[in-house]
Amino acid sequence: MDKQTDWFHAQYSETAHLSLRIKEHLYSTRSPYQKIDVFDSYDFGRVLVLDDIINVTERDEYIYHEMLTHVPLFVQPEPKSVLVVGGGDGGVIREVMKHSCVERALMIEIDAAVIEAAKQYFPAVSCGLHDSRVEVITADASAYIAHTKQAYDVIIVDSTDPIGAGLRLFTHDFYNNCLEALTADGVLTAQSESPFFDLDIVQRLYATARDIFPFVTMYIAFMPSYVSGIWSFLFCSRGTDPVRHFQHERYHHSGITANYYNQNIHTSAFTLPTFIKKQFNL
Amino acid sequence: MDKQTDWFHAQYSETAHLSLRIKEHLYSTRSPYQKIDVFDSYDFGRVLVLDDIINVTERDEYIYHEMLTHVPLFVQPEPKSVLVVGGGDGGVIREVMKHSCVERALMIEIDAAVIEAAKQYFPAVSCGLHDSRVEVITADASAYIAHTKQAYDVIIVDSTDPIGAGLRLFTHDFYNNCLEALTADGVLTAQSESPFFDLDIVQRLYATARDIFPFVTMYIAFMPSYVSGIWSFLFCSRGTDPVRHFQHERYHHSGITANYYNQNIHTSAFTLPTFIKKQFNL
Repeated sequence: MDKQTDWFHAQYSETAHLSLRIKEHLYSTRSPYQKIDVFDSYDFGRVLVLDDIINVTERDEYIYHEMLTHVPLFVQPEPKSVLVVGGGDGGVIREVMKHSCVERALMIEIDAAVIEAAKQYFPAVSCGLHDSRVEVITADASAYIAHTKQAYDVIIVDSTDPIGAGLRLFTHDFYNNCLEALTADGVLTAQSESPFFDLDIVQRLYATARDIFPFVTMYIAFMPSYVSGIWSFLFCSRGTDPVRHFQHERYHHSGITANYYNQNIHTSAFTLPTFIKKQFNL
Repeated sequence: MDKQTDWFHAQYSETAHLSLRIKEHLYSTRSPYQKIDVFDSYDFGRVLVLDDIINVTERDEYIYHEMLTHVPLFVQPEPKSVLVVGGGDGGVIREVMKHSCVERALMIEIDAAVIEAAKQYFPAVSCGLHDSRVEVITADASAYIAHTKQAYDVIIVDSTDPIGAGLRLFTHDFYNNCLEALTADGVLTAQSESPFFDLDIVQRLYATARDIFPFVTMYIAFMPSYVSGIWSFLFCSRGTDPVRHFQHERYHHSGITANYYNQNIHTSAFTLPTFIKKQFNL
């Protein structure tokens, strides 16, 4: 965040940036975990920035949150309990709450300051946090999940990049604990970075997931405000195939409206370009 | 192209840029039609810039060229003659030449200086231009196609943005002349800008195409170096549906290797996110 000029430079790398002109600085703080900034932009509306990385923009947040959420929730036969790891902005919870079959959703966000910033500056993202089915715990999810006795039908890992606090959410231990915290036909999704720019991170994460889960695959979506505009999502299960097990009937009776996700996108998101298939052995 | 600093700022808009650090300035000229720059970047390899807009990068040009080319060539039953409008860098021709059924390809590029820059600085892109089946004419394609007596099985419009010389390739007259220059089961594709940032341009282009062609639809691909990372492509025909008429058998016998395009991508590229379907009535 460059306060000398009115531009914010999101780093794809040290030598490539997405630069957004700032209309108004709205908020800046340092929590125990990260630097948090909110500004209003001309092209993407309000932007939530964590440690100088774009986390949420009003303009395209729905793509990321819909794809991370509706894919697993329309694959698991009848999701009643959902665990959201991270996701303090509330966007995933907002999408989870659209599913009437969900009885209980637990969100574990390490940084209370992110939740507060989202409630204040992104009411259309954080709105789902007020639902009576939602419980929010401010804690380290990796420690929580290591000791929980609960089982969840769906686990959604909405982490930051694997730096700082986010690092623990990319480990073998964490994925092993997730597997143990899933019901028999439970499924897990996680944001898994740019398959165009973050090759090492993506390769390591999928290798980790494959060591733990019997079934691992990737799906992708356009994400204009994120590095490279391509974003990948990790799908893990004990054998449930996300395309073959798409819950047609529930989808058609759900009445869920989404801006990016739809039945055909559910399937086509798992269709990968050749360079991605090769790079990640998919 | 900012020669004071070593950064190039590709404008998504006046308030959003993709900024690339320049490793080396390689070439700059002004042709009668546009400013042409070539530089070497750290993240995208060599970059061809026309009027300050990224046209080709070594890192991701294959995505654009494969998608613009293989989709129509694997839909038309047996493409023998192909017309490429624009495309002076040669990338589309390179992909066309992979199809052994093509007997003749004519490329009409208005700007000889683009062809020369591509031959000198992008040999892996322009290589197809040397194929004996290729004829290159340096001329205004909109004037040429208004008077040609030839008919083509596939027309591919690889234009710049609708400014300057490119403007003529977005008109009713041009699309009408294209329809008349297609064989009975001929198909046309055109690059059709970012469906996320260039809404007005895209809407006008599709309205124009629908006024002329009986069958019009859109397909999309990731394109990290282009505005927003999402790129759209226009598909037009007299009724041929690009998904139903995919030429499975020829595809499987073609032995064609591509880095992005494959059989599943051919179909999924026509699966559009809800916001695009709504915005463009697709």
